[in-house]
Amino acid sequence: MNLFNFFTRSRSTAPVARERLQLLLAHERALSGQSDLAVVLQEEILAVIAKHVSIDREKVNVKLGRDGTVSTLEIDIEMPEAALVKN
Amino acid sequence: MNLFNFFTRSRSTAPVARERLQLLLAHERALSGQSDLAVVLQEEILAVIAKHVSIDREKVNVKLGRDGTVSTLEIDIEMPEAALVKN
Repeated sequence: MNLFNFFTRSRSTAPVARERLQLLLAHERALSGQSDLAVVLQEEILAVIAKHVSIDREKVNVKLGRDGTVSTLEIDIEMPEAALVKN
Repeated sequence: MNLFNFFTRSRSTAPVARERLQLLLAHERALSGQSDLAVVLQEEILAVIAKHVSIDREKVNVKLGRDGTVSTLEIDIEMPEAALVKN
């Protein structure tokens, strides 16, 4: 995963009336044997987002990565306009 | 905020036995008048993380940003080793 491109790669597409939510989480563990917070948090963070946005799970792209003691979680959600859930 | 540096700026520090959790969220709204999901999500995402990690609120750095129709949320948490809450 190229972190440098993460938040810029969508900008080259033509503008459309869509919402987009991107989230990148990086967990640097002190020791390589520790539990992987990125794995643990992915479903809970998605649940928090889904409380506010009507999510089509086919439009959700989740990627987990691991490089030594750093684990990463990428969440990329495309949603049609007006997908915000009114509270 | 320079997104390109977000996940690399901590790497230049000397390695210490600390955990670090960094999260970057970007919300591209279709219309500029819509509600700001980054603001709404910040406390809920912190609460989800706090379920798994013992967080010292003084070590939590939260930044909200806005640039046109893109709002951003940065969360940076430093924690001592073994801060993971056992479930």
